[in-house]
Amino acid sequence: VQKIQPLDRLPVHEALARLQAALVRAGWAPGTESVPTYEALGRVTAEPVRARIAVPHYRAAAVDGVAVRSALVERATPDQPVRLTLPDQAQWVDTGEPIPAEADAVIMKEELTWVEGGRAVQVARPIHPGRHVRAVGEDWQAGREVLQAGVRIRPVDIAALLATGIAQVQVYHRPIVGFLPTGSELVEADARSVTSLRPGQILESNSHMILAEVARWGGQPLRHPIVPDDPARLRAAIADLIERCDLLLISAGSSQGSRDFTVHLLRELGEVLVHGVAMRPGKPVILAMVKGKPVIGLPGYPGAAWLAAYLFVRPLLYQAQGQEAPPAQRVTARLGAPIRSPAGLAHYVRIRLRQALVEPGQVQSGAPGWIAAPFPPGSGLIATLVGANGLLCIPPGVTELPAGALVEVERLI
Amino acid sequence: VQKIQPLDRLPVHEALARLQAALVRAGWAPGTESVPTYEALGRVTAEPVRARIAVPHYRAAAVDGVAVRSALVERATPDQPVRLTLPDQAQWVDTGEPIPAEADAVIMKEELTWVEGGRAVQVARPIHPGRHVRAVGEDWQAGREVLQAGVRIRPVDIAALLATGIAQVQVYHRPIVGFLPTGSELVEADARSVTSLRPGQILESNSHMILAEVARWGGQPLRHPIVPDDPARLRAAIADLIERCDLLLISAGSSQGSRDFTVHLLRELGEVLVHGVAMRPGKPVILAMVKGKPVIGLPGYPGAAWLAAYLFVRPLLYQAQGQEAPPAQRVTARLGAPIRSPAGLAHYVRIRLRQALVEPGQVQSGAPGWIAAPFPPGSGLIATLVGANGLLCIPPGVTELPAGALVEVERLI
Repeated sequence: VQKIQPLDRLPVHEALARLQAALVRAGWAPGTESVPTYEALGRVTAEPVRARIAVPHYRAAAVDGVAVRSALVERATPDQPVRLTLPDQAQWVDTGEPIPAEADAVIMKEELTWVEGGRAVQVARPIHPGRHVRAVGEDWQAGREVLQAGVRIRPVDIAALLATGIAQVQVYHRPIVGFLPTGSELVEADARSVTSLRPGQILESNSHMILAEVARWGGQPLRHPIVPDDPARLRAAIADLIERCDLLLISAGSSQGSRDFTVHLLRELGEVLVHGVAMRPGKPVILAMVKGKPVIGLPGYPGAAWLAAYLFVRPLLYQAQGQEAPPAQRVTARLGAPIRSPAGLAHYVRIRLRQALVEPGQVQSGAPGWIAAPFPPGSGLIATLVGANGLLCIPPGVTELPAGALVEVERLI
Repeated sequence: VQKIQPLDRLPVHEALARLQAALVRAGWAPGTESVPTYEALGRVTAEPVRARIAVPHYRAAAVDGVAVRSALVERATPDQPVRLTLPDQAQWVDTGEPIPAEADAVIMKEELTWVEGGRAVQVARPIHPGRHVRAVGEDWQAGREVLQAGVRIRPVDIAALLATGIAQVQVYHRPIVGFLPTGSELVEADARSVTSLRPGQILESNSHMILAEVARWGGQPLRHPIVPDDPARLRAAIADLIERCDLLLISAGSSQGSRDFTVHLLRELGEVLVHGVAMRPGKPVILAMVKGKPVIGLPGYPGAAWLAAYLFVRPLLYQAQGQEAPPAQRVTARLGAPIRSPAGLAHYVRIRLRQALVEPGQVQSGAPGWIAAPFPPGSGLIATLVGANGLLCIPPGVTELPAGALVEVERLI
């Protein structure tokens, strides 16, 4: 029988800081790799990227016309036009085509008078050297930086990279996130098992939810099949997965129940940094290091698992890609119903945000605001998962928010 | 020799409306498909989705304790506790485990006194029938709608679908977008061709830029290799691709030059709805229908190709997925330099948005605003592609915007 220790009550930011300090000590860095530019959408540049060729990489016609040596027409006037034979003294060029080496200007087709059945042109005006010629590198010099390090590559960036001859680009590796679902009550959520569920069996859904978020945060999902509550099998699965991933998530077994082996195994295999964070839901989260890699024990309740991943996995994945996580999009909203909150815990409440309606006859000042509607008590898991589009954090020192209070709500997408 | 016709000058919204009317006439609808729920991230539900099982799907313990018939303990008092033997009269259950058929309540472990070496418990208080028992469907009833039609599936939605027994979900097909790059000057932008470029050769980049956007808009890219300026090969490629895609993009050849065959081929193979839109850049865009599918001829200049795709391809892809395109995110900004604009054309200007700095000693009123800096004349393609993070549309009636003007700028991500 394992001795049950009280959970830590570390504030969220201190728990994250403790994990990040351990990552620095361990030199955790998933690294970089070279990928074809046309597959680099959403990847983050690991170093400054410089043009391999100039744009244009040859002297190019800026208009349709004839390429000439400007000296040949320097005395041309409307009264005494200069006659140029093709292709000896003037060469036809379309826009974008290369200029012959001996030419230094392009005369626009609108300025030409064709004579001798198209074998020659007459020119009535001189032309400046360089006129209508795009010089090599006029748009971009070879060697000039196209993208800085740390830039997430957009479609237009792909075009700029390819146009400057960058066919491969060095980007941060997408961290591989292992997910180990544990629990003898769990069954794989496929079409067959739905029809044969027995009482007590639960369809495993947390792994698919969290790994879908992981993909949105730039990571690569690596899901392990369900492991039952058996310490030997759990130990073997952790030992296997930790070699194949950059970050390991274990769900659940992070609590203190008789079958919650996770924290004991992690103490045996590595170092448990945090067991218990001053937050609701998600209090029993585990932050650990095993073989120089972060391991996060997630609670089993889906809302709590999601929150723990959002607070602890998301920043790590962006960090591994050389970036800060995108800032939260917050709106100020009026609380639609009072909320009680436990003292000493950061309380994260899933919220339904909606635009406030203006009553007929009511004077409207400014734009319509937002209403933040908490879910009524007993709403249950499914309602709060699919219905929430906002997240409200009530700090540890606040135990009650009255209806009508103005709150900052983070929008969930 | 083809007769050159003047381009149309249709306003952007009229050009799009003409295309959409043709899609309605043709009954264009890429359709729906069933996918495993755990692969449905970002897909859009094609019909309302209803729970296949209740949550919970069995009567479950809400706490750790013993399941009992409440009638057995209805006379229990602290002075005259009732003794229950295990497992005949009381069965141990962990939270979430099923309740035996004969039991109707769970007594919390904190309320139990263990006697006879763990073979029995003493109970000092009666318990209400149903106490600490989660009824079948307490969280969600079987058959109740989990997601409406037209919802883009998020990670939390995946959890809710799986938990309610929905292992497969009917979603809109991701439209297949064919891309046909044309032009004898083009070469594939791979590492080898960069080192062997000849004057006049251009690395093909538009397809990779536009198809990366297509992927972000929910479409499936299908790229054709480069086709040189040869009407027979171009005709064959169009005829092949149109069978394999839901929407076809052709780049370039949308203009009126001697080698711009695209519009003539599209007239031959189908119906050209629009050739020329009152916009800059991107004026020579072609909107056509071939075999009941939309075909869009994009200009060759990358900034113009991007804009034409943004204005005409993006709304179609969302429409095919049963959705409206997400609304633009706009900020109000002060123009950093004057812009001249052609009369009669909607002028789309790529802009660098930055936060305004407050000068020392200057009084700041409200939050710092945005400065919209146009690129200086002659900035070139690469600078405007990688440098812009905003798009300013100057309407056809406006020919000049002075420096300092307040403008609405759409943020580009």
